[in-house]
Amino acid sequence: MASEEYTKEAVNAVNRLAKRGAYDYATIHTLFNTSPILHVSFIDPTHPFPIILPMIGCTGSFSSPSSDPNASPQDIYIHGYVSSRLFKTPTTSATEEGLPITVSATFLDGLVLSLTPFHNSCNYRSAVAYGYASLVTDSDERMYAMQKITNNILPSRWENSRVPPTRAEISSTSILRIKIHSASAKVRTGGPSEDRADLKNKELVKGTWTGVVPVWYQWGEPMPGKENEMENVQGYIEDWRVKESQLGRVKAYEAIEEEGK
Amino acid sequence: MASEEYTKEAVNAVNRLAKRGAYDYATIHTLFNTSPILHVSFIDPTHPFPIILPMIGCTGSFSSPSSDPNASPQDIYIHGYVSSRLFKTPTTSATEEGLPITVSATFLDGLVLSLTPFHNSCNYRSAVAYGYASLVTDSDERMYAMQKITNNILPSRWENSRVPPTRAEISSTSILRIKIHSASAKVRTGGPSEDRADLKNKELVKGTWTGVVPVWYQWGEPMPGKENEMENVQGYIEDWRVKESQLGRVKAYEAIEEEGK
Repeated sequence: MASEEYTKEAVNAVNRLAKRGAYDYATIHTLFNTSPILHVSFIDPTHPFPIILPMIGCTGSFSSPSSDPNASPQDIYIHGYVSSRLFKTPTTSATEEGLPITVSATFLDGLVLSLTPFHNSCNYRSAVAYGYASLVTDSDERMYAMQKITNNILPSRWENSRVPPTRAEISSTSILRIKIHSASAKVRTGGPSEDRADLKNKELVKGTWTGVVPVWYQWGEPMPGKENEMENVQGYIEDWRVKESQLGRVKAYEAIEEEGK
Repeated sequence: MASEEYTKEAVNAVNRLAKRGAYDYATIHTLFNTSPILHVSFIDPTHPFPIILPMIGCTGSFSSPSSDPNASPQDIYIHGYVSSRLFKTPTTSATEEGLPITVSATFLDGLVLSLTPFHNSCNYRSAVAYGYASLVTDSDERMYAMQKITNNILPSRWENSRVPPTRAEISSTSILRIKIHSASAKVRTGGPSEDRADLKNKELVKGTWTGVVPVWYQWGEPMPGKENEMENVQGYIEDWRVKESQLGRVKAYEAIEEEGK
Protein backbone atom coordinates (compact mmCIF):
# COMPACT_ATOMS: atom_id res chain seq x y z
CA MET A 1 0.00 0.00 0.00
CA ALA A 2 3.07 2.25 0.11
CA SER A 3 2.20 3.84 -3.23
CA GLU A 4 -1.31 4.64 -2.06
CA GLU A 5 -0.48 6.90 0.79
CA TYR A 6 1.06 10.24 1.68
CA THR A 7 4.73 10.29 2.57
CA LYS A 8 5.38 10.65 6.26
CA GLU A 9 7.53 13.66 6.97
CA ALA A 10 8.04 16.20 9.73
CA VAL A 11 4.93 18.25 9.09
CA ASN A 12 2.35 15.44 8.97
CA ALA A 13 3.86 12.74 11.19
CA VAL A 14 1.62 11.66 14.06
CA ASN A 15 4.15 11.46 16.87
CA ARG A 16 2.16 11.16 20.05
CA LEU A 17 0.20 7.91 20.20
CA ALA A 18 1.53 7.01 16.74
CA LYS A 19 -0.71 3.93 16.47
CA ARG A 20 -3.61 6.32 16.03
CA GLY A 21 -2.03 7.75 12.87
CA ALA A 22 -2.89 6.85 9.25
CA TYR A 23 -1.47 8.08 5.96
CA ASP A 24 -3.42 6.18 3.28
CA TYR A 25 -5.45 7.96 0.62
CA ALA A 26 -8.62 6.02 1.42
CA THR A 27 -8.79 7.02 5.10
CA ILE A 28 -7.77 10.63 4.53
CA HIS A 29 -9.86 11.36 1.43
CA THR A 30 -12.93 9.66 2.90
CA LEU A 31 -12.73 11.96 5.93
CA PHE A 32 -12.55 15.05 3.71
CA ASN A 33 -15.41 13.79 1.54
CA THR A 34 -17.77 12.87 4.36
CA SER A 35 -17.24 15.74 6.80
CA PRO A 36 -19.95 18.34 6.12
CA ILE A 37 -17.67 21.10 7.44
CA LEU A 38 -13.96 21.62 6.81
CA HIS A 39 -11.82 24.02 8.80
CA VAL A 40 -9.32 25.96 6.73
CA SER A 41 -6.37 27.82 8.22
CA PHE A 42 -3.87 30.18 6.64
CA ILE A 43 -1.52 32.94 7.69
CA ASP A 44 -2.42 36.59 7.33
CA PRO A 45 0.89 38.47 7.50
CA THR A 46 -0.83 41.60 8.84
CA HIS A 47 -1.23 40.11 12.32
CA PRO A 48 0.25 37.24 14.35
CA PHE A 49 -2.83 35.01 14.50
CA PRO A 50 -3.64 32.39 11.87
CA ILE A 51 -7.10 32.68 10.31
CA ILE A 52 -9.57 29.79 10.70
CA LEU A 53 -12.61 29.61 8.45
CA PRO A 54 -15.29 26.92 8.35
CA MET A 55 -15.91 26.08 4.69
CA ILE A 56 -17.31 23.30 2.54
CA GLY A 57 -15.43 21.21 0.02
CA CYS A 58 -14.29 17.80 -1.12
CA THR A 59 -11.50 16.07 -2.99
CA GLY A 60 -11.30 15.96 -6.77
CA SER A 61 -8.95 15.64 -9.69
CA PHE A 62 -9.80 17.79 -12.69
CA SER A 63 -6.94 16.36 -14.75
CA SER A 64 -7.97 12.79 -13.98
CA PRO A 65 -11.67 13.00 -13.06
CA SER A 66 -12.29 9.24 -13.02
CA SER A 67 -9.42 8.53 -10.62
CA ASP A 68 -10.41 6.65 -7.48
CA PRO A 69 -9.96 8.88 -4.41
CA ASN A 70 -9.32 5.75 -2.35
CA ALA A 71 -6.22 4.93 -4.37
CA SER A 72 -4.98 8.14 -6.02
CA PRO A 73 -3.66 11.53 -5.05
CA GLN A 74 -6.34 14.21 -5.07
CA ASP A 75 -6.69 17.95 -4.79
CA ILE A 76 -9.12 19.53 -2.35
CA TYR A 77 -11.69 21.94 -3.77
CA ILE A 78 -13.09 24.48 -1.34
CA HIS A 79 -15.98 26.83 -1.74
CA GLY A 80 -17.09 29.52 0.66
CA TYR A 81 -18.56 32.98 0.82
CA VAL A 82 -15.76 34.15 3.05
CA SER A 83 -13.00 33.22 0.69
CA SER A 84 -12.62 36.86 -0.31
CA ARG A 85 -10.60 37.31 2.86
CA LEU A 86 -8.29 34.55 1.76
CA PHE A 87 -7.39 36.36 -1.42
CA LYS A 88 -7.03 39.79 -0.01
CA THR A 89 -4.14 38.37 1.96
CA PRO A 90 -0.98 40.10 0.80
CA THR A 91 0.85 37.88 -1.62
CA THR A 92 3.96 37.99 0.53
CA SER A 93 2.83 34.81 2.20
CA ALA A 94 2.06 33.06 -1.09
CA THR A 95 4.77 31.28 -3.04
CA GLU A 96 4.77 30.31 -6.70
CA GLU A 97 3.04 27.14 -5.61
CA GLY A 98 0.18 29.08 -4.04
CA LEU A 99 -0.90 30.18 -0.59
CA PRO A 100 0.19 27.76 2.14
CA ILE A 101 -2.99 26.41 3.69
CA THR A 102 -4.12 23.72 6.12
CA VAL A 103 -7.43 21.90 5.89
CA SER A 104 -8.94 19.83 8.66
CA ALA A 105 -11.91 17.41 8.80
CA THR A 106 -13.02 16.16 12.21
CA PHE A 107 -15.71 13.74 13.34
CA LEU A 108 -16.48 13.37 17.02
CA ASP A 109 -17.68 9.78 17.57
CA GLY A 110 -18.16 9.64 21.31
CA LEU A 111 -17.41 10.88 24.79
CA VAL A 112 -15.33 8.31 26.68
CA LEU A 113 -16.01 8.32 30.41
CA SER A 114 -13.59 6.65 32.79
CA LEU A 115 -13.49 6.36 36.57
CA THR A 116 -11.44 9.54 36.82
CA PRO A 117 -11.49 12.76 34.77
CA PHE A 118 -7.82 12.37 33.88
CA HIS A 119 -8.64 9.30 31.74
CA ASN A 120 -11.73 10.74 30.03
CA SER A 121 -11.26 10.95 26.29
CA CYS A 122 -13.11 11.27 23.00
CA ASN A 123 -13.52 8.87 20.13
CA TYR A 124 -12.83 10.80 16.96
CA ARG A 125 -11.64 10.60 13.35
CA SER A 126 -9.72 13.54 12.01
CA ALA A 127 -7.70 14.33 8.91
CA VAL A 128 -5.43 17.25 8.19
CA ALA A 129 -3.92 18.22 4.84
CA TYR A 130 -1.16 20.75 4.22
CA GLY A 131 -1.00 22.25 0.77
CA TYR A 132 -0.93 25.22 -1.55
CA ALA A 133 -4.14 26.99 -2.52
CA SER A 134 -4.87 28.77 -5.78
CA LEU A 135 -8.04 30.39 -7.06
CA VAL A 136 -9.51 28.34 -9.87
CA THR A 137 -9.79 30.60 -12.91
CA ASP A 138 -10.69 28.13 -15.65
CA SER A 139 -14.48 28.01 -16.22
CA ASP A 140 -14.57 24.28 -16.93
CA GLU A 141 -12.63 23.50 -13.77
CA ARG A 142 -14.89 25.80 -11.75
CA MET A 143 -17.92 23.99 -13.11
CA TYR A 144 -16.30 20.64 -12.34
CA ALA A 145 -15.61 21.72 -8.76
CA MET A 146 -19.07 23.26 -8.20
CA GLN A 147 -20.75 20.07 -9.36
CA LYS A 148 -18.39 17.91 -7.31
CA ILE A 149 -18.94 19.93 -4.12
CA THR A 150 -22.73 20.07 -4.59
CA ASN A 151 -23.09 16.34 -5.16
CA ASN A 152 -20.54 15.48 -2.49
CA ILE A 153 -22.76 16.99 0.18
CA LEU A 154 -26.06 15.73 -1.31
CA PRO A 155 -25.76 13.14 -4.09
CA SER A 156 -27.73 14.00 -7.26
CA ARG A 157 -28.64 17.52 -6.14
CA TRP A 158 -26.79 19.04 -9.11
CA GLU A 159 -28.83 17.14 -11.72
CA ASN A 160 -32.02 17.79 -9.75
CA SER A 161 -31.73 21.57 -9.68
CA ARG A 162 -31.33 24.37 -12.20
CA VAL A 163 -28.03 23.81 -14.03
CA PRO A 164 -25.81 24.84 -15.62
CA PRO A 165 -25.03 27.96 -13.58
CA THR A 166 -25.33 31.23 -15.46
CA ARG A 167 -22.15 32.95 -16.61
CA ALA A 168 -22.64 35.53 -13.85
CA GLU A 169 -22.93 32.76 -11.26
CA ILE A 170 -19.82 31.02 -12.50
CA SER A 171 -17.81 34.22 -12.52
CA SER A 172 -18.88 35.25 -9.01
CA THR A 173 -18.16 31.88 -7.40
CA SER A 174 -14.82 31.55 -5.68
CA ILE A 175 -13.36 28.08 -5.83
CA LEU A 176 -10.03 27.20 -4.30
CA ARG A 177 -7.92 24.29 -5.44
CA ILE A 178 -5.52 22.96 -2.84
CA LYS A 179 -2.59 20.90 -4.07
CA ILE A 180 -1.87 18.58 -1.17
CA HIS A 181 1.75 18.59 -0.04
CA SER A 182 1.24 16.12 2.81
CA ALA A 183 -1.57 14.79 4.93
CA SER A 184 -2.37 12.47 7.80
CA ALA A 185 -5.32 11.13 9.74
CA LYS A 186 -5.75 10.33 13.41
CA VAL A 187 -8.37 8.02 14.83
CA ARG A 188 -9.25 7.19 18.44
CA THR A 189 -11.47 4.19 19.08
CA GLY A 190 -12.46 1.94 21.97
CA GLY A 191 -13.70 2.38 25.49
CA PRO A 192 -12.13 3.94 28.57
CA SER A 193 -8.78 2.89 29.96
CA GLU A 194 -8.41 2.87 33.72
CA ASP A 195 -5.75 2.96 36.37
CA ARG A 196 -5.28 -0.27 38.27
CA ALA A 197 -5.57 1.58 41.55
CA ASP A 198 -9.01 2.90 40.58
CA LEU A 199 -10.21 -0.56 39.51
CA LYS A 200 -9.32 -1.91 42.95
CA ASN A 201 -11.54 0.72 44.57
CA LYS A 202 -14.76 -1.32 44.71
CA GLU A 203 -16.89 1.53 46.00
CA LEU A 204 -15.73 3.76 43.16
CA VAL A 205 -16.30 1.08 40.51
CA LYS A 206 -19.75 0.21 41.82
CA GLY A 207 -20.80 3.86 41.97
CA THR A 208 -19.38 5.29 38.75
CA TRP A 209 -20.79 4.51 35.32
CA THR A 210 -18.01 4.14 32.75
CA GLY A 211 -18.25 3.69 29.03
CA VAL A 212 -18.89 5.71 25.90
CA VAL A 213 -21.69 8.09 24.96
CA PRO A 214 -21.74 7.91 21.14
CA VAL A 215 -22.48 11.00 19.05
CA TRP A 216 -23.15 11.63 15.36
CA TYR A 217 -24.64 14.17 12.94
CA GLN A 218 -28.39 13.60 12.85
CA TRP A 219 -30.06 14.97 9.73
CA GLY A 220 -33.68 15.73 10.67
CA GLU A 221 -36.91 15.98 8.79
CA PRO A 222 -36.51 18.60 6.04
CA MET A 223 -38.46 21.87 6.33
CA PRO A 224 -39.77 23.34 3.07
CA GLY A 225 -38.79 26.92 2.24
CA LYS A 226 -41.29 29.71 1.55
CA GLU A 227 -40.97 29.27 -2.19
CA ASN A 228 -41.20 25.49 -2.23
CA GLU A 229 -44.14 24.07 -4.17
CA MET A 230 -43.44 20.36 -3.89
CA GLU A 231 -45.75 18.55 -1.50
CA ASN A 232 -43.26 15.85 -0.56
CA VAL A 233 -39.52 15.88 -0.10
CA GLN A 234 -37.95 14.18 -3.09
CA GLY A 235 -36.80 10.60 -2.58
CA TYR A 236 -33.11 11.20 -3.23
CA ILE A 237 -33.08 13.82 -0.43
CA GLU A 238 -34.91 11.57 2.04
CA ASP A 239 -32.73 8.59 1.13
CA TRP A 240 -29.59 10.63 1.61
CA ARG A 241 -30.47 12.18 4.97
CA VAL A 242 -31.73 8.91 6.45
CA LYS A 243 -28.72 6.96 5.18
CA GLU A 244 -26.27 9.64 6.29
CA SER A 245 -27.68 9.70 9.83
CA GLN A 246 -27.65 5.89 10.03
CA LEU A 247 -24.08 5.78 8.79
CA GLY A 248 -23.00 8.30 11.43
CA ARG A 249 -24.74 6.26 14.12
CA VAL A 250 -23.15 3.01 12.94
CA LYS A 251 -19.68 4.61 12.83
CA ALA A 252 -20.07 5.94 16.37
CA TYR A 253 -21.06 2.51 17.76
CA GLU A 254 -18.46 0.65 15.69
CA ALA A 255 -15.77 2.93 17.09
CA ILE A 256 -16.66 1.74 20.60
CA GLU A 257 -16.37 -1.93 19.63
CA GLU A 258 -13.07 -1.55 17.81
CA GLU A 259 -9.87 -2.36 19.58
CA GLY A 260 -8.86 0.73 21.48
CA LYS A 261 -6.30 3.00 19.90
CA MET B 1 -24.17 46.47 25.64
CA ALA B 2 -20.97 48.12 24.40
CA SER B 3 -19.12 47.13 27.55
CA GLU B 4 -20.18 43.52 27.19
CA GLU B 5 -18.60 42.76 23.90
CA TYR B 6 -15.27 42.44 22.13
CA THR B 7 -13.96 45.48 20.33
CA LYS B 8 -14.32 45.29 16.58
CA GLU B 9 -10.97 45.70 14.86
CA ALA B 10 -9.24 44.57 11.70
CA VAL B 11 -8.54 41.00 12.80
CA ASN B 12 -12.02 40.04 14.01
CA ALA B 13 -14.35 42.25 11.94
CA VAL B 14 -16.94 40.33 9.95
CA ASN B 15 -16.80 42.21 6.65
CA ARG B 16 -18.65 40.12 4.14
CA LEU B 17 -22.36 39.86 5.04
CA ALA B 18 -21.73 41.96 8.14
CA LYS B 19 -25.26 41.45 9.48
CA ARG B 20 -24.24 37.86 10.25
CA GLY B 21 -21.56 39.10 12.65
CA ALA B 22 -21.76 39.32 16.45
CA TYR B 23 -19.27 40.52 19.03
CA ASP B 24 -21.06 40.10 22.37
CA TYR B 25 -19.66 37.94 25.14
CA ALA B 26 -22.86 35.91 25.48
CA THR B 27 -22.99 34.74 21.85
CA ILE B 28 -19.27 34.07 21.58
CA HIS B 29 -18.70 32.39 24.96
CA THR B 30 -21.80 30.25 24.59
CA LEU B 31 -20.49 28.90 21.29
CA PHE B 32 -17.15 28.00 22.88
CA ASN B 33 -18.87 26.42 25.88
CA THR B 34 -21.35 24.32 23.92
CA SER B 35 -19.24 23.09 21.01
CA PRO B 36 -17.90 19.66 21.95
CA ILE B 37 -14.88 20.17 19.66
CA LEU B 38 -12.74 23.27 19.24
CA HIS B 39 -10.26 23.73 16.42
CA VAL B 40 -7.02 25.37 17.46
CA SER B 41 -4.57 26.87 14.99
CA PHE B 42 -1.07 28.24 15.48
CA ILE B 43 2.04 28.89 13.44
CA ASP B 44 4.97 26.48 13.44
CA PRO B 45 7.92 28.50 12.16
CA THR B 46 9.62 25.36 10.80
CA HIS B 47 7.25 25.16 7.81
CA PRO B 48 4.83 27.42 5.95
CA PHE B 49 1.58 25.73 6.96
CA PRO B 50 -0.38 26.62 10.09
CA ILE B 51 -1.15 23.70 12.40
CA ILE B 52 -4.79 22.80 13.12
CA LEU B 53 -5.60 20.56 16.06
CA PRO B 54 -9.04 19.46 17.26
CA MET B 55 -9.10 19.88 21.05
CA ILE B 56 -11.56 20.26 23.90
CA GLY B 57 -11.99 23.24 26.14
CA CYS B 58 -14.22 25.98 27.49
CA THR B 59 -14.11 29.50 28.84
CA GLY B 60 -13.17 30.32 32.40
CA SER B 61 -11.76 32.99 34.67
CA PHE B 62 -9.44 31.75 37.38
CA SER B 63 -9.00 35.23 38.86
CA SER B 64 -12.75 35.82 38.95
CA PRO B 65 -14.31 32.37 38.99
CA SER B 66 -17.86 33.51 39.70
CA SER B 67 -17.93 35.98 36.79
CA ASP B 68 -20.78 35.46 34.36
CA PRO B 69 -19.42 34.35 30.94
CA ASN B 70 -22.43 36.02 29.30
CA ALA B 71 -21.35 39.42 30.58
CA SER B 72 -17.63 39.31 31.34
CA PRO B 73 -14.35 38.77 29.54
CA GLN B 74 -13.10 35.21 29.83
CA ASP B 75 -10.04 33.15 29.03
CA ILE B 76 -10.27 29.92 27.08
CA TYR B 77 -8.85 26.80 28.69
CA ILE B 78 -7.82 24.04 26.32
CA HIS B 79 -6.83 20.50 27.06
CA GLY B 80 -5.55 17.91 24.64
CA TYR B 81 -3.14 15.04 24.32
CA VAL B 82 -1.55 16.60 21.30
CA SER B 83 -0.68 19.82 22.98
CA SER B 84 2.94 18.68 23.30
CA ARG B 85 3.35 19.74 19.67
CA LEU B 86 2.17 23.20 20.59
CA PHE B 87 4.92 23.63 23.13
CA LYS B 88 7.74 22.19 21.14
CA THR B 89 7.18 25.06 18.76
CA PRO B 90 10.28 27.23 18.83
CA THR B 91 9.61 30.21 21.01
CA THR B 92 10.56 32.57 18.19
CA SER B 93 6.87 32.77 17.34
CA ALA B 94 5.82 33.40 20.91
CA THR B 95 5.86 36.87 22.36
CA GLU B 96 5.95 37.89 26.00
CA GLU B 97 2.18 37.64 25.91
CA GLY B 98 2.34 34.00 24.81
CA LEU B 99 1.98 32.02 21.62
CA PRO B 100 -0.40 33.64 19.12
CA ILE B 101 -3.25 31.20 18.65
CA THR B 102 -6.69 31.06 17.06
CA VAL B 103 -9.58 29.02 18.42
CA SER B 104 -12.72 28.20 16.49
CA ALA B 105 -16.09 26.68 17.49
CA THR B 106 -18.51 25.73 14.71
CA PHE B 107 -22.03 24.32 14.70
CA LEU B 108 -23.59 23.23 11.44
CA ASP B 109 -27.38 23.74 11.80
CA GLY B 110 -28.65 22.78 8.37
CA LEU B 111 -28.14 22.34 4.66
CA VAL B 112 -30.02 25.03 2.75
CA LEU B 113 -31.25 23.84 -0.65
CA SER B 114 -32.33 26.35 -3.28
CA LEU B 115 -33.49 25.97 -6.86
CA THR B 116 -29.94 26.27 -8.13
CA PRO B 117 -26.61 25.08 -6.66
CA PHE B 118 -25.24 28.61 -6.69
CA HIS B 119 -27.71 29.63 -3.97
CA ASN B 120 -27.28 26.56 -1.78
CA SER B 121 -25.96 27.46 1.65
CA CYS B 122 -25.58 26.21 5.20
CA ASN B 123 -27.13 27.39 8.43
CA TYR B 124 -24.34 27.59 10.99
CA ARG B 125 -23.11 29.30 14.14
CA SER B 126 -19.40 29.85 14.49
CA ALA B 127 -17.09 31.75 16.80
CA VAL B 128 -13.44 32.53 16.45
CA ALA B 129 -11.11 33.92 19.11
CA TYR B 130 -7.61 35.30 18.59
CA GLY B 131 -5.36 35.29 21.59
CA TYR B 132 -2.14 34.38 23.34
CA ALA B 133 -1.65 30.91 24.78
CA SER B 134 0.43 29.99 27.80
CA LEU B 135 0.89 26.68 29.58
CA VAL B 136 -0.80 26.76 32.95
CA THR B 137 1.83 25.97 35.56
CA ASP B 138 0.00 26.72 38.81
CA SER B 139 -1.51 23.56 40.34
CA ASP B 140 -4.65 25.30 41.61
CA GLU B 141 -5.34 26.85 38.23
CA ARG B 142 -4.75 23.51 36.53
CA MET B 143 -7.23 21.90 38.88
CA TYR B 144 -9.71 24.73 38.26
CA ALA B 145 -9.40 24.26 34.50
CA MET B 146 -9.60 20.44 34.60
CA GLN B 147 -12.80 20.62 36.64
CA LYS B 148 -14.23 23.34 34.41
CA ILE B 149 -13.50 21.42 31.19
CA THR B 150 -14.81 18.13 32.59
CA ASN B 151 -18.08 19.60 33.81
CA ASN B 152 -18.47 21.79 30.75
CA ILE B 153 -18.74 18.74 28.53
CA LEU B 154 -20.80 16.66 30.99
CA PRO B 155 -22.26 18.54 33.97
CA SER B 156 -21.51 16.92 37.37
CA ARG B 157 -19.09 14.33 35.97
CA TRP B 158 -16.24 15.74 38.08
CA GLU B 159 -18.08 15.24 41.40
CA ASN B 160 -19.32 11.84 40.24
CA SER B 161 -15.91 10.36 39.51
CA ARG B 162 -12.66 9.83 41.36
CA VAL B 163 -11.33 13.23 42.35
CA PRO B 164 -9.09 14.97 43.13
CA PRO B 165 -6.56 13.92 40.52
CA THR B 166 -3.34 12.45 41.87
CA ARG B 167 -0.24 14.62 41.88
CA ALA B 168 1.11 12.58 38.98
CA GLU B 169 -2.08 13.19 37.00
CA ILE B 170 -2.04 16.91 37.64
CA SER B 171 1.60 17.21 36.66
CA SER B 172 1.19 15.25 33.42
CA THR B 173 -1.88 17.19 32.24
CA SER B 174 -1.23 19.97 29.80
CA ILE B 175 -3.64 22.86 30.12
CA LEU B 176 -3.43 25.95 27.94
CA ARG B 177 -4.81 29.30 28.97
CA ILE B 178 -5.66 31.57 26.09
CA LYS B 179 -5.96 35.29 26.84
CA ILE B 180 -8.44 36.51 24.25
CA HIS B 181 -7.24 39.50 22.26
CA SER B 182 -10.33 39.74 20.09
CA ALA B 183 -13.18 37.53 18.96
CA SER B 184 -16.27 37.45 16.80
CA ALA B 185 -19.14 35.16 15.90
CA LYS B 186 -20.95 34.58 12.64
CA VAL B 187 -24.42 33.11 12.32
CA ARG B 188 -26.42 32.17 9.22
CA THR B 189 -30.13 31.47 9.66
CA GLY B 190 -33.24 31.20 7.51
CA GLY B 191 -34.24 29.36 4.38
CA PRO B 192 -33.02 29.54 0.80
CA SER B 193 -32.93 32.73 -1.21
CA GLU B 194 -33.74 32.48 -4.90
CA ASP B 195 -33.24 34.34 -8.12
CA ARG B 196 -36.39 35.92 -9.54
CA ALA B 197 -35.72 34.31 -12.89
CA ASP B 198 -35.70 30.86 -11.30
CA LEU B 199 -38.96 31.54 -9.43
CA LYS B 200 -40.67 32.39 -12.73
CA ASN B 201 -39.67 29.00 -14.10
CA LYS B 202 -42.83 27.09 -13.09
CA GLU B 203 -41.54 23.72 -14.25
CA LEU B 204 -38.36 24.18 -12.19
CA VAL B 205 -40.27 25.30 -9.08
CA LYS B 206 -42.80 22.47 -9.31
CA GLY B 207 -40.06 19.88 -9.79
CA THR B 208 -37.40 20.97 -7.29
CA TRP B 209 -37.78 20.61 -3.53
CA THR B 210 -36.32 23.63 -1.73
CA GLY B 211 -35.87 24.21 1.96
CA VAL B 212 -33.56 23.22 4.80
CA VAL B 213 -32.38 19.82 6.03
CA PRO B 214 -31.58 20.49 9.72
CA VAL B 215 -28.66 18.75 11.41
CA TRP B 216 -27.44 18.45 15.01
CA TYR B 217 -25.24 16.37 17.29
CA GLN B 218 -27.25 13.37 18.42
CA TRP B 219 -25.93 11.78 21.61
CA GLY B 220 -26.97 8.12 21.50
CA GLU B 221 -27.64 5.44 24.10
CA PRO B 222 -24.48 5.03 26.19
CA MET B 223 -22.48 1.79 25.89
CA PRO B 224 -20.91 0.50 29.10
CA GLY B 225 -17.15 -0.14 29.07
CA LYS B 226 -15.56 -3.50 29.94
CA GLU B 227 -14.86 -2.44 33.49
CA ASN B 228 -18.26 -0.89 34.18
CA GLU B 229 -20.20 -2.52 37.03
CA MET B 230 -23.27 -0.25 37.19
CA GLU B 231 -26.38 -1.83 35.76
CA ASN B 232 -27.97 1.43 34.64
CA VAL B 233 -26.54 4.59 33.24
CA GLN B 234 -26.61 7.25 35.96
CA GLY B 235 -29.41 9.80 35.74
CA TYR B 236 -27.21 12.86 35.32
CA ILE B 237 -25.61 11.25 32.23
CA GLU B 238 -28.96 10.27 30.70
CA ASP B 239 -30.44 13.69 31.48
CA TRP B 240 -27.48 15.44 29.89
CA ARG B 241 -27.33 13.44 26.68
CA VAL B 242 -31.10 13.58 26.10
CA LYS B 243 -31.26 17.31 26.87
CA GLU B 244 -28.19 18.07 24.76
CA SER B 245 -29.61 16.24 21.73
CA GLN B 246 -32.98 17.97 22.12
CA LEU B 247 -31.31 21.35 22.43
CA GLY B 248 -29.32 20.74 19.25
CA ARG B 249 -32.48 19.71 17.43
CA VAL B 250 -34.40 22.76 18.67
CA LYS B 251 -31.54 25.09 17.64
CA ALA B 252 -31.43 23.59 14.15
CA TYR B 253 -35.19 24.07 13.62
CA GLU B 254 -35.24 27.52 15.23
CA ALA B 255 -32.49 28.63 12.84
CA ILE B 256 -34.78 27.84 9.91
CA GLU B 257 -37.63 29.91 11.34
CA GLU B 258 -35.47 32.92 12.18
CA GLU B 259 -35.33 35.80 9.79
CA GLY B 260 -32.70 34.96 7.24
CA LYS B 261 -29.24 36.42 7.72
